[in-house]
Amino acid sequence: MAIQNDPRIPVAVLGATGAVGQRLVSLLDGHPRFVLAEVAASERSAGKSYADATRWILPGDMPAAAHDLVVTSVEAALSSPICLSALDAAVADIVEPLQASRGKFVVSNTKSFRMKPDVPLVIPEVNADHLALLDMQPHRAQGGGIVTNPNCSVVGLAMALAPLDRAFGVARVAVTTMQALSGAGYPGVASLDALGNVIPFIDGEEEKIEREPRKILGRLVNGRVVDADFPISVSVNRVPVRDGHMESVFLDLKKKVSLDDVRTALETFTGEPQRLGLPSAPARPLVVRDERDRPQPARDVEAGNGMTVTVGRLRPDPVFDVKFTLLVHNTVRGAAGAALLNAELLLAQGRVATRAPVR
Amino acid sequence: MAIQNDPRIPVAVLGATGAVGQRLVSLLDGHPRFVLAEVAASERSAGKSYADATRWILPGDMPAAAHDLVVTSVEAALSSPICLSALDAAVADIVEPLQASRGKFVVSNTKSFRMKPDVPLVIPEVNADHLALLDMQPHRAQGGGIVTNPNCSVVGLAMALAPLDRAFGVARVAVTTMQALSGAGYPGVASLDALGNVIPFIDGEEEKIEREPRKILGRLVNGRVVDADFPISVSVNRVPVRDGHMESVFLDLKKKVSLDDVRTALETFTGEPQRLGLPSAPARPLVVRDERDRPQPARDVEAGNGMTVTVGRLRPDPVFDVKFTLLVHNTVRGAAGAALLNAELLLAQGRVATRAPVR
Amino acid sequence: MAIQNDPRIPVAVLGATGAVGQRLVSLLDGHPRFVLAEVAASERSAGKSYADATRWILPGDMPAAAHDLVVTSVEAALSSPICLSALDAAVADIVEPLQASRGKFVVSNTKSFRMKPDVPLVIPEVNADHLALLDMQPHRAQGGGIVTNPNCSVVGLAMALAPLDRAFGVARVAVTTMQALSGAGYPGVASLDALGNVIPFIDGEEEKIEREPRKILGRLVNGRVVDADFPISVSVNRVPVRDGHMESVFLDLKKKVSLDDVRTALETFTGEPQRLGLPSAPARPLVVRDERDRPQPARDVEAGNGMTVTVGRLRPDPVFDVKFTLLVHNTVRGAAGAALLNAELLLAQGRVATRAPVR
Amino acid sequence: MAIQNDPRIPVAVLGATGAVGQRLVSLLDGHPRFVLAEVAASERSAGKSYADATRWILPGDMPAAAHDLVVTSVEAALSSPICLSALDAAVADIVEPLQASRGKFVVSNTKSFRMKPDVPLVIPEVNADHLALLDMQPHRAQGGGIVTNPNCSVVGLAMALAPLDRAFGVARVAVTTMQALSGAGYPGVASLDALGNVIPFIDGEEEKIEREPRKILGRLVNGRVVDADFPISVSVNRVPVRDGHMESVFLDLKKKVSLDDVRTALETFTGEPQRLGLPSAPARPLVVRDERDRPQPARDVEAGNGMTVTVGRLRPDPVFDVKFTLLVHNTVRGAAGAALLNAELLLAQGRVATRAPVR
Repeated sequence: MAIQNDPRIPVAVLGATGAVGQRLVSLLDGHPRFVLAEVAASERSAGKSYADATRWILPGDMPAAAHDLVVTSVEAALSSPICLSALDAAVADIVEPLQASRGKFVVSNTKSFRMKPDVPLVIPEVNADHLALLDMQPHRAQGGGIVTNPNCSVVGLAMALAPLDRAFGVARVAVTTMQALSGAGYPGVASLDALGNVIPFIDGEEEKIEREPRKILGRLVNGRVVDADFPISVSVNRVPVRDGHMESVFLDLKKKVSLDDVRTALETFTGEPQRLGLPSAPARPLVVRDERDRPQPARDVEAGNGMTVTVGRLRPDPVFDVKFTLLVHNTVRGAAGAALLNAELLLAQGRVATRAPVR
Repeated sequence: MAIQNDPRIPVAVLGATGAVGQRLVSLLDGHPRFVLAEVAASERSAGKSYADATRWILPGDMPAAAHDLVVTSVEAALSSPICLSALDAAVADIVEPLQASRGKFVVSNTKSFRMKPDVPLVIPEVNADHLALLDMQPHRAQGGGIVTNPNCSVVGLAMALAPLDRAFGVARVAVTTMQALSGAGYPGVASLDALGNVIPFIDGEEEKIEREPRKILGRLVNGRVVDADFPISVSVNRVPVRDGHMESVFLDLKKKVSLDDVRTALETFTGEPQRLGLPSAPARPLVVRDERDRPQPARDVEAGNGMTVTVGRLRPDPVFDVKFTLLVHNTVRGAAGAALLNAELLLAQGRVATRAPVR
Repeated sequence: MAIQNDPRIPVAVLGATGAVGQRLVSLLDGHPRFVLAEVAASERSAGKSYADATRWILPGDMPAAAHDLVVTSVEAALSSPICLSALDAAVADIVEPLQASRGKFVVSNTKSFRMKPDVPLVIPEVNADHLALLDMQPHRAQGGGIVTNPNCSVVGLAMALAPLDRAFGVARVAVTTMQALSGAGYPGVASLDALGNVIPFIDGEEEKIEREPRKILGRLVNGRVVDADFPISVSVNRVPVRDGHMESVFLDLKKKVSLDDVRTALETFTGEPQRLGLPSAPARPLVVRDERDRPQPARDVEAGNGMTVTVGRLRPDPVFDVKFTLLVHNTVRGAAGAALLNAELLLAQGRVATRAPVR
Repeated sequence: MAIQNDPRIPVAVLGATGAVGQRLVSLLDGHPRFVLAEVAASERSAGKSYADATRWILPGDMPAAAHDLVVTSVEAALSSPICLSALDAAVADIVEPLQASRGKFVVSNTKSFRMKPDVPLVIPEVNADHLALLDMQPHRAQGGGIVTNPNCSVVGLAMALAPLDRAFGVARVAVTTMQALSGAGYPGVASLDALGNVIPFIDGEEEKIEREPRKILGRLVNGRVVDADFPISVSVNRVPVRDGHMESVFLDLKKKVSLDDVRTALETFTGEPQRLGLPSAPARPLVVRDERDRPQPARDVEAGNGMTVTVGRLRPDPVFDVKFTLLVHNTVRGAAGAALLNAELLLAQGRVATRAPVR
């Protein structure tokens, strides 16, 4: 495959054979600005073709362009300037800084570095300005850096909170999640645990949801993020749904406003991806539905090609100022699409050297 | 079937062919103090044998003793002193007062009369004393009355709140439910809506859950119930589970106590059914599980033959004083078993004439 | 909406508010040769906008172009020359001949007229020549006619049998189906019946599968179809799958051939839709997969936009000459897409007057 | 726990922590003739209490009597005369002969030795006489031996075929299975593979179903089994059901008989377990249901406490002499209950030394 004259930027996918890695490979197929140039996975897969190394679990077939890519080790020297990483935390701990120190932009989906002071935890519509933290990283000298996207449940929550916090101030939040099976990866949840059942626990998840949105909605002050000050209370559940995390959200605001004000703030929300016309940006990051029984994973998860968060059941409440239910596509907007949109933002901000590498 | 010398009290099941009616018929099979003597349903079924009139939807077979009972109209004059009613609200509006006015004790599972000032809304472990409201009813002169049990989600919530409210005072509650399909009756939810999906709406349900527990936990003062004063915020969801409503509960208490205090209050909770040894009473109305991923419908719904509410994930919270998850068997403790336990309580309190009627 | 200068042919969808009707409306959105001009449904819906009359059950939103179409009665005089009918049999019995007698081509998805001697039962890849039966119909004088497509399970089976029967002769067939919930329409199967269950019965289905393929694979002789002579044995089951009927097929052939011969016959199968380049025709009507655990509804149902039948597990057998498993998208290739492809074939054969009607 | 004066026979469960092992532990709770005395598992679990070593996956709680048993290695010297083995084949290959050579009766649920000429493959109702093969085993000198029960799908099929083969002669069989998730053990099938899906493959399963029934229905001649001579054609599928394998069976008989003859043969079928009154024997090994949509896993799997095979949809066929659908509880009658019934038969035949061992 001669991609030397291809104007698209080559990217590597780290952890390409796993569930999120496959989503990345799928989303890169036909991408206007990026081309999948390298797939990296564990030593066990290295040397095999991507088709041989991968048990493809997404609907439909593996993109033809990926079939014959030879899997490299995640620690190998890569030629692509951008690494989209879907590595497990234990491997990411070592590999992501290694690749960043070699001058790569590592766009990470993993929890490892999300809460580090010098690592931006970014949802492009919400806190694109946090990318300035890249300048604080030691990898800057080599021209690389690490950017992270949030936990899959956090993306939906933080996106819905962002316009409300800006306009009215969020005072406190309680949220119960009903999370899809694909959030646990593959093989993930055993079918005997999942079928006709609800599991009220996901290891480490509540802590992430209680913490990450506060960094994302924090203000950048003198090269560091000052966390948002509202507390978040979370109760998580796994439900027998394939894709799409549902979240019942209860909310107090600092400024007392009408439901219409809340609705308007949600519906009119846009950010850098929409302004810059990024390829993976949905026209509307948030959609508010009026039907009394929406959103539903089976009907709404693909909104905006999986990049739109759907809000419904916006209504008053006897305890809180407002409550609503939201739905986020956990492996697209909540994982692979989030990383890809971050990479698109990096590119649009001119942070990535755009000449194709000599190969 | 000669039941004249049977020491057991004959009971009628109203709405016997429906989902909750079938549960009542099933629970009455082998009951030590009651015998299923009459089955009543709509005009369409009247005159048929119960076996012919009923599409049995519970696992296993219809109890043999019920097969040949002839279905009567719900408005017919009945001989049993107790009517366990699983009627839909529209029919119950008319039929339940009618049967009560004929001197029957109507133990109703329907919403129609739950909030009426002179109708007891009873969970025997919680507010057995509310049965005194029966003396306020116009049916008293005929020796009858209407007793109601709560909405299926309310039973679990009110049972968990009861010991905490007594010991520490409940200040406010937020709860998200994940409710089983059987709660919608049969045919109920279409499989295309249910499979692999979450529906964030059940008509009228949030209103019931926000209102009924306050009556149940209210105090009886001068022949009327003074509602408990804490507000409840509810967000309901339907999930693809057969039996067992899960509820994520967030709670503030008036008195600040330790988690251990909360646990002890829950675990040691008992009430009249346990004191009186009622046949359907579980040894422990509330069980607290310590495993981090329990309760689960698939594993815990049958606890105490479906009459025990299982609490798990008891833990501290950044916003509320405490949070936990509970599970209630919605068609047993939340419906048929609730009505049956109320009937057993009526009997134990000596309110029902215990001579078998001449037939 | 001015469609007067639109080169596309206006079509009406009969039974537009139901499950298959919605699929038709969805498939017509963006169609290059047809434009959805009229939606017809029961009297109850007539006069409403399509958006108001329809509970949209497909993923995503109703096509915008359909929102404001006013629903007409199915018996109304229609202006479109083609009626795609998703009516229930009882209504179709009356309405389809009525519309045909008014000079419409009724492309019917219903069982009513499939087995009538003068009605073509057509899968365009298999027996496009059967459309000649239209000339036998009494509606010919008015320029109309009735064309039917088969039962959803039959489409997949007949498509797989067609190349084998032509090349080697089919001697007899045994097939067990595992059919998706959407095949029962909406609301269709109750979730309490479907969840975690298999139902070994679908009313009238086995009779259709044992009979219809023999007409489809029959030869047209002197203006009538001589049925294929092989017997078919069928056992049907409903399984908790949203879309996609699976069929385990056991087969004896008249000519003894190798598995490779069978594979080649399946893989190289094409027909009129491919030759004519019909818009809804998949490049390959049949795809044979080699993975040992395919086809699967969750992975393969969307093959060829739901118009490709996927065959897998092609293997020898101790009792039969060959066995395999096939998957057909029951509401696309098995229903709405089948009707649409028939309409496209009618158009390509020049049977439909192609001037847009004056409106 | 002093079980020295217990008249019950102590048994060991090998592979006690796995899915089938748990079923054995569960079925032994309250058993009248056996007492669970030893639990054996992998080295990793050895030395732990059973409660600590086991992630209990069955509904409800682990039997209290099992909690504190100390897990031993499967290769350890055991004191119980009977070992119920739920070991994986790789371990069973070594451990089962080892324990048999020490004088134990190993009642194995594993495939390892089922087809060995000197190992009885027994369904007590069908071929109790095959236990005579024990006398051919080298372990006889030590007083031990290996008895196996069939694959879970085979049990249901062979039980239904047995009375028909005896009465009329089975000529050939085609069967499509729809198998429950619990058949794959725990964690078994990934939920992303199972949810809303059908998988048309289970490794090695078709071979077992095509082979094992012929040994079971074979005749014992001069100390060896002469296999039944009819061929069996099998197509297997995994469906999203928790417990209960469904099988669509097509059948030719050597003697042409009426459907009533077939029904009578099935309904009147009994065997040694019923004659001997074995504790786990169902009153009726086969039940024939007349409803047109039964058997169903959700409704019928617990028939006879999971030990009855339910047959339904008995009907004529255009290709075969008869077809029907059967349901077998795959982890009870198809695994743990099958092994237990074999052990009960061994005991009733006087093959096991019944004095409690000195401990």
